[in-house]
Amino acid sequence: MAQTFVMRGVEGKVKKTPAEIPELKPNEVLVKITHSGLCGTDLYYIDPGCALGHEGVGIVEKVGNAVTAHKIGDRVGGGYLRSSCGRCKYCLTGRDIMCYNRDVFGFAGFSNGTFATYYVATEGYVYPIPESMPSEIAAPLQCAGATVYSALNTYYQTGMRVGVLGIGGLGHLAIQFAAKMGAPTTVFSTSPSKDKEARDFGASEFVVLGQEDKLEAPVDVLLITAFKAPNWSTLMSEKVVARGASIVVLGAIGTTLEFPFFPYFFNCYNLVTNLVASRATHAEMLAFAAHHGVRPLIEEFPMDEAGVAEALARLQQGKVRYRAVLKA
Amino acid sequence: MAQTFVMRGVEGKVKKTPAEIPELKPNEVLVKITHSGLCGTDLYYIDPGCALGHEGVGIVEKVGNAVTAHKIGDRVGGGYLRSSCGRCKYCLTGRDIMCYNRDVFGFAGFSNGTFATYYVATEGYVYPIPESMPSEIAAPLQCAGATVYSALNTYYQTGMRVGVLGIGGLGHLAIQFAAKMGAPTTVFSTSPSKDKEARDFGASEFVVLGQEDKLEAPVDVLLITAFKAPNWSTLMSEKVVARGASIVVLGAIGTTLEFPFFPYFFNCYNLVTNLVASRATHAEMLAFAAHHGVRPLIEEFPMDEAGVAEALARLQQGKVRYRAVLKA
Repeated sequence: MAQTFVMRGVEGKVKKTPAEIPELKPNEVLVKITHSGLCGTDLYYIDPGCALGHEGVGIVEKVGNAVTAHKIGDRVGGGYLRSSCGRCKYCLTGRDIMCYNRDVFGFAGFSNGTFATYYVATEGYVYPIPESMPSEIAAPLQCAGATVYSALNTYYQTGMRVGVLGIGGLGHLAIQFAAKMGAPTTVFSTSPSKDKEARDFGASEFVVLGQEDKLEAPVDVLLITAFKAPNWSTLMSEKVVARGASIVVLGAIGTTLEFPFFPYFFNCYNLVTNLVASRATHAEMLAFAAHHGVRPLIEEFPMDEAGVAEALARLQQGKVRYRAVLKA
Repeated sequence: MAQTFVMRGVEGKVKKTPAEIPELKPNEVLVKITHSGLCGTDLYYIDPGCALGHEGVGIVEKVGNAVTAHKIGDRVGGGYLRSSCGRCKYCLTGRDIMCYNRDVFGFAGFSNGTFATYYVATEGYVYPIPESMPSEIAAPLQCAGATVYSALNTYYQTGMRVGVLGIGGLGHLAIQFAAKMGAPTTVFSTSPSKDKEARDFGASEFVVLGQEDKLEAPVDVLLITAFKAPNWSTLMSEKVVARGASIVVLGAIGTTLEFPFFPYFFNCYNLVTNLVASRATHAEMLAFAAHHGVRPLIEEFPMDEAGVAEALARLQQGKVRYRAVLKA
């Protein structure tokens, strides 16, 4: 058997480092990783030396002696929310992602990632992959897909118009989910050239930022999927974002959020967030994606140092169309 | 009959200026003002020369020929939301304050205010005052009371803990409403000396800003009733404001809102707003206040130039305990 490894930040680069197969706790499962998506969030954890990857898919190879939710041979995915207490008000009301005792990627389990031979999961914090869904397609749904579905699931109601700002890893999935939920979906982008692909993903309208006056009607939910702050002073207009709308910030668009007070206030906007997904929503997202054929468009790279380096370089240059997946 | 007047900004001061009694449109009512609250918002409209006052109470003296909602002699109050279209999705779902065709104080009716002999109201945009409620008590409820009640009505659910930051015109009413709704209510203030009065209004806990570590448990709804920005970096902690909480900004705390992204994001906060109240909520607020004896603590001033000047000076010095009311 080949040496098992995890990939982690070492002096600013991602290196393959040897790893032992850990002793499983009674409620843990050992997942042999076959695929893992690469997320913008991984970039933040290279310097801290964290084991990377939180969009993993693989096969259960071993289970702890108390595990009942999974069995050997199951195909499962997960990696961001790693555990929660199961007993607090958040856990008991479908909001376990907010649990005060949550473990999430980057805050715990620094030696456990999905760019690895094995990922150790707590029972119930990985999700069965629907049979019709290929593993490389399932991988990016574990964070990017879960994030945008959860945001829509919380803030979108039938009858609303949805706006998606940015058409990258998150955005191209947000368009598909919103369109399949039945929403007139407008994509806002800086690149006029993305009109056709936005419509191919299901957008009913495409608006180049700076030309918001061409918008057919204001949106009731706006997902900010970009990783830099938009021009709030043109966006926060009742002609672009409807009064009372939810503006959902999905990515780290800076260390400080800053926007003009009066348009925010007089238009009664809700500036809200969404952190990946709680477990019930995550499972629901996979079923919805399988039912509707929501699929990330991916670029595959081998899960080795050269593959990761290339994928990272393309990600940092904004070239990935639309999600990089590492294949073991 | 004495000359009728409105009070408005003239060269930076509030002056009594003669006014004609207007011809009523079929759906308008003429309200002879007896009392009007003075709100921090009025200050912004002195320089633009606007007729001031949007917390008026008085007696209906005349009605347009199509009016059915009010009759001569009715005691009514209102002044911020002046009209809306009545037909859009907002108006039809109890959110008329967001109507795109709304008229609100400061944006329309520059010659119509409640610091005046007469206020001209659109039918249905003034509200009957409950019989048990004195007019001077009803006046500050028309904006300050409506604002804090509406915020709680939208974001508070039984079982939550409420925080009120600031104990002024809005804050002292927010404490009363929250306590009467059954919420454990924590007041955050810069002044240790306000502990007793906060508890007299119904607060169950008083925390001096900077000593948030003494807080019993984090709050699930935080109303920012102050008119300057709080120290977000200490407030946006999961030990002070619970994960998933709504932080409701009720006053203009600057021309720019600026706060640290990561605590906001990882605690899943909702940064939301609330603009006074829609009509159904406004009427409900008056009934709730009458039922529970929610009462602003007021300082009375005569509705003349000297009275307004004195009230304004005390407001600007932060001395009013807790709402100034002008008496005609």
